[in-house]
Amino acid sequence: MISIICGTNRGQSVSKKIALYYQNLLKEAGANSYVLDLKELPEDFMNVALYDNAGKSEAFNTLKKKLNESHKMVFIVPEYNGSFPGVLKTFIDALDYPQSLKNKKCALLSLSSGSQGGALALSHLTDILHYCGMNVLAQKPKLAKIEANFKEGQFTNELYVTLLKEQIEAFLPF
Amino acid sequence: MISIICGTNRGQSVSKKIALYYQNLLKEAGANSYVLDLKELPEDFMNVALYDNAGKSEAFNTLKKKLNESHKMVFIVPEYNGSFPGVLKTFIDALDYPQSLKNKKCALLSLSSGSQGGALALSHLTDILHYCGMNVLAQKPKLAKIEANFKEGQFTNELYVTLLKEQIEAFLPF
Amino acid sequence: MISIICGTNRGQSVSKKIALYYQNLLKEAGANSYVLDLKELPEDFMNVALYDNAGKSEAFNTLKKKLNESHKMVFIVPEYNGSFPGVLKTFIDALDYPQSLKNKKCALLSLSSGSQGGALALSHLTDILHYCGMNVLAQKPKLAKIEANFKEGQFTNELYVTLLKEQIEAFLPF
Amino acid sequence: MISIICGTNRGQSVSKKIALYYQNLLKEAGANSYVLDLKELPEDFMNVALYDNAGKSEAFNTLKKKLNESHKMVFIVPEYNGSFPGVLKTFIDALDYPQSLKNKKCALLSLSSGSQGGALALSHLTDILHYCGMNVLAQKPKLAKIEANFKEGQFTNELYVTLLKEQIEAFLPF
Repeated sequence: MISIICGTNRGQSVSKKIALYYQNLLKEAGANSYVLDLKELPEDFMNVALYDNAGKSEAFNTLKKKLNESHKMVFIVPEYNGSFPGVLKTFIDALDYPQSLKNKKCALLSLSSGSQGGALALSHLTDILHYCGMNVLAQKPKLAKIEANFKEGQFTNELYVTLLKEQIEAFLPF
Repeated sequence: MISIICGTNRGQSVSKKIALYYQNLLKEAGANSYVLDLKELPEDFMNVALYDNAGKSEAFNTLKKKLNESHKMVFIVPEYNGSFPGVLKTFIDALDYPQSLKNKKCALLSLSSGSQGGALALSHLTDILHYCGMNVLAQKPKLAKIEANFKEGQFTNELYVTLLKEQIEAFLPF
Repeated sequence: MISIICGTNRGQSVSKKIALYYQNLLKEAGANSYVLDLKELPEDFMNVALYDNAGKSEAFNTLKKKLNESHKMVFIVPEYNGSFPGVLKTFIDALDYPQSLKNKKCALLSLSSGSQGGALALSHLTDILHYCGMNVLAQKPKLAKIEANFKEGQFTNELYVTLLKEQIEAFLPF
Repeated sequence: MISIICGTNRGQSVSKKIALYYQNLLKEAGANSYVLDLKELPEDFMNVALYDNAGKSEAFNTLKKKLNESHKMVFIVPEYNGSFPGVLKTFIDALDYPQSLKNKKCALLSLSSGSQGGALALSHLTDILHYCGMNVLAQKPKLAKIEANFKEGQFTNELYVTLLKEQIEAFLPF
């Protein structure tokens, strides 16, 4: 079971829509997955799931338990302020170190409203996941100008679909 | 007025103690400062201060207003999972873009329990602050093995004190 | 006297043409500069100017002496393999540490044939220059798809000209 | 056949000695390897193997051909100026894009005289190798204060030996 992590807690996010699109591509390729939307994090997550409070939030523990059972993950990462959302790093900070991520495998995908596509976001995230002992697939599509290229749940830019399919093809046997 | 940002919301953090130590060094150098401890962030900050809710948290607005009036900042950054704490990026994501940080100046300082000192944390943070238009002082002390080198509010490693004083000497005219 | 470093030793490089364009913009803004094209490096540079041979190449020493007298630098950086050219780092490795770069100031500009513009190249270079004690201006224009946007020595994309002028406006008083 | 790349062209480098040590560890683990020392690069490499001259240096072509036939690589990377040596990037710039590296696998190891161990060097190198389509093992040992911990071809710090053995154990089935 592959975990697809929607890397923002913003409501109605494009990232969530792309997570669902990606889930469908995985299904077509014969792989089961579920979407973990960071919007599902408990409201007081930042205070009840970290440090001395680690493990005390039942709602977070439920999300974490499911993730811990997964050995492959896909991160859908919007660009915020030249990197990935703070909430995604806070989520990683609240996981079990190192067992949540160590010796597991992941694929990363970024999107941005602007023209740069999130290269720095994925570079930072790669550093962190490597630190946690997680192998990161080399292919990391960066989907720039996402609003112009993804509408009503579908890509209008065929290149982007190709990039995602090639990533999945490399990820499944990774 | 220099803002010293304690880059974690963990209680009783070493970062907070170093922030207070740094404030004293600034005072000795003739500079006024105050400490903004991320522990002061409202509990539901992640949900009430971002995206559609931007500006709706009075508690956050008060912290932000004071920061916006400041033109120099010092970030005290503990290493979490090979980078800086997620809560610090979430805090940056909730600031006013670009006016909170643009054309301002900052100095960065990292600390780690381990032996690496946080070089990647400060590299990632530099990328983000540059994206936001903030100039970052080249000197970025990385204080490794902090528990062995800082006890009861004082450094036991004179080199670390020297690094901080040299940073301040470069930062004040920056 | 500002040094404009053309960050590749490729002949007929677009970087060189942009370096000359940038020099003209600096002149219009009242600043003197010269172009140091890495193509001028001696052919055996990699072997005669580093390590035990440091200082033994007269041709390199001449280039270095002029750079050492300069307190502001502009780096024109093409994207090669997702970062900046190896020859640029080799050049930095051959400079005098730390006096060639320490406590000096620079502005960075990247260009790429592809759509990403060189964000990672400038991130890596910033890390290195900060390590060497050089302050880096926050504004770092990234000029993507350069062949489509710069022809016969002129930009066909007005946005790019605006970005360069804004960078210079921020750099001169930096 | 695993390629072990000694990432500097400095003579008598510690990196070369560690490359030979690593080769022995691989042999003990049942894996064949050879060492490609960047010191073997032709003296005028920077001028005869790049851009319009790509493919024209027989000496370089011989090194490249052997590398191209290899599907696993280990990079031994000394820290120079807060990153990896320029000559290593120049070497990568002279390889065949993308076939020399694409869809291959590598393990990275850094060493430094100073206390930081080369975390930024390996972060930059990871970005570049990912760009080239090469998968990078998450475990990346960073060997700080190498002169104090490696003498006469042997590690005096047992932790470092453990880190290398763990890396090899993860790399062989990667």
